[in-house]
Amino acid sequence: MPPRMRSSRTVADIGEFGFLSRMLPRLATDSHTIVGPGQDCAVVSSGRRTLLTVDALVEGVHFEPAWLSPRQLGRKSFLVNASDIAAMGGRPRFCVVSVGIRPSYLTRDLSALQAGIVAAAAECGASVVGGNLTRADKLFVSITLLGDAPARLVTRQGAHPGDHIYVTGWLGDAALAVRLLRAGEVTGSGRFHPIRRFREPSARLHAGQSLVDAGIVSAMIDVSDGLIQDLGHICTESGVAATIDPQAIPVSSDYRAMQGPDRSLALTGGEDYELLCTVPERNVKRLRRLQSHLGCPITCVGRIEKGRGVRLAGDPSRVAKAAGFDHFLQR
Amino acid sequence: MPPRMRSSRTVADIGEFGFLSRMLPRLATDSHTIVGPGQDCAVVSSGRRTLLTVDALVEGVHFEPAWLSPRQLGRKSFLVNASDIAAMGGRPRFCVVSVGIRPSYLTRDLSALQAGIVAAAAECGASVVGGNLTRADKLFVSITLLGDAPARLVTRQGAHPGDHIYVTGWLGDAALAVRLLRAGEVTGSGRFHPIRRFREPSARLHAGQSLVDAGIVSAMIDVSDGLIQDLGHICTESGVAATIDPQAIPVSSDYRAMQGPDRSLALTGGEDYELLCTVPERNVKRLRRLQSHLGCPITCVGRIEKGRGVRLAGDPSRVAKAAGFDHFLQR
Repeated sequence: MPPRMRSSRTVADIGEFGFLSRMLPRLATDSHTIVGPGQDCAVVSSGRRTLLTVDALVEGVHFEPAWLSPRQLGRKSFLVNASDIAAMGGRPRFCVVSVGIRPSYLTRDLSALQAGIVAAAAECGASVVGGNLTRADKLFVSITLLGDAPARLVTRQGAHPGDHIYVTGWLGDAALAVRLLRAGEVTGSGRFHPIRRFREPSARLHAGQSLVDAGIVSAMIDVSDGLIQDLGHICTESGVAATIDPQAIPVSSDYRAMQGPDRSLALTGGEDYELLCTVPERNVKRLRRLQSHLGCPITCVGRIEKGRGVRLAGDPSRVAKAAGFDHFLQR
Repeated sequence: MPPRMRSSRTVADIGEFGFLSRMLPRLATDSHTIVGPGQDCAVVSSGRRTLLTVDALVEGVHFEPAWLSPRQLGRKSFLVNASDIAAMGGRPRFCVVSVGIRPSYLTRDLSALQAGIVAAAAECGASVVGGNLTRADKLFVSITLLGDAPARLVTRQGAHPGDHIYVTGWLGDAALAVRLLRAGEVTGSGRFHPIRRFREPSARLHAGQSLVDAGIVSAMIDVSDGLIQDLGHICTESGVAATIDPQAIPVSSDYRAMQGPDRSLALTGGEDYELLCTVPERNVKRLRRLQSHLGCPITCVGRIEKGRGVRLAGDPSRVAKAAGFDHFLQR
């Protein structure tokens, strides 16, 4: 067999353990990692109360290979989890990674994927302490992230009638990006804001920590499945209703340029990884003082009420369908 | 559309959130679960030193749907992780589950899969505190398990020349089962020991805890990828060599009946989830006193030596190839 170019080497050429032996030494861990990657288990020194979350990105479901570079995919796989930690006001600490790939996957792509995970973890103050690599027909990356819990816990259950509903950043960009990427309209258009956000999302960690530590929010969730759906979770678990004003929803200038006044993607599109929270009236002034320190805009989009379900301000008689991202219902 | 029989309902019929809303109330958590499933993160009260491991089972790689019932698959997905905790002498505590399924997957099968995970976790003293469900073309179950670390840590790095090599239980059954299942020879033959072990493996938690707590073992690993390969990991990480006697390897009576004196599957077959450990000479007497309390047999199969690599006693001049289960190299 002729020697292969190093850059075209696949995982099938070097095997799981061949790859792991190259990759493991590159993982930086911190002083709280007692035993790092490469053993049956990692051993970590954790706080008394640990946050625990898991999320997966699957080829053909969450992305097509052409939409994200391997490094972007790695980075995003971490950040979708960091967003869950942000929604609880926590601090990411340790993660383990479960990856499924085809044997024909290039080792340089796997290295880039891994580097993206490690870089995103480091940006958020976390270490990659273990993982598992398996064969799979479609690429998947499932990451479990541990974080330090804040002193005061905020869940989806604390919203009360009269609370104001706030959302960080801008909504609808990721859904707009997926629509454009599916249509093949924007190949290479990395400067277009929605595409950039789809490829390189942020987790609102600092905002989440600040809002929880200051005791400002009564309930919080990250917007991963769409505003209506995720607000619906808060309503269901808090036993309340909500009315939102579609025109108040913050959108990017690119979104506005392409969609005009249409807010449907901002209402139902998933994967924006913004924070959605409820703020009691008595805390609104303190939120205003804090808002320039959150690292992102925060906008009031509606109000919590008595009752059930999510209503749109322009059409108060109708309960908005819990339309949002559900892998199984929307195909 | 005609009403569907309840038992033939698929995940596409009820959606991710429909399934989760039915499943979540059935999850039992313990007093150390501060926030259970259904939030952005679980919150757990953990010990100071936490073990952390992840492993995935993928359809077409680790199993075919006909080989395992959904409940068996759930149970096994948990136990392959519990085995990693056992190899560190730890106690399983909390897990999160990442599942990928086709929309056509029956909800009763998904419930059975989930019930298998929950039952296996409960058997091992652990709680299922969170999860993620996504669409995927091939079924995968990736579980991350947290455990309490023992006071004294044992890794793959402590083996010294002169140490005896021990293995719990019986090796080769799972590989024999896969060979038979692939050949379609044993459909329905659930009473055949190797098939039963493939479908319903045990994690040697009590043995692992006892061996570590008593300070008997210098290094330990679970045999998930084959004896030679996993012993090779101990040798590489401890900087030692090993010689094993193939005829000393413990095999089940069904294995012996089918394979005669051939120990190749016991040497290289994966997925037996036994413990492989090294025991310094000075601890052998204490091990003999302890062995009736481990919950399984433990057998000496060789000796640690100076040098590199794994040798077979009958053929001492030759370093055994690190043949074992590698998803990417062995297809």
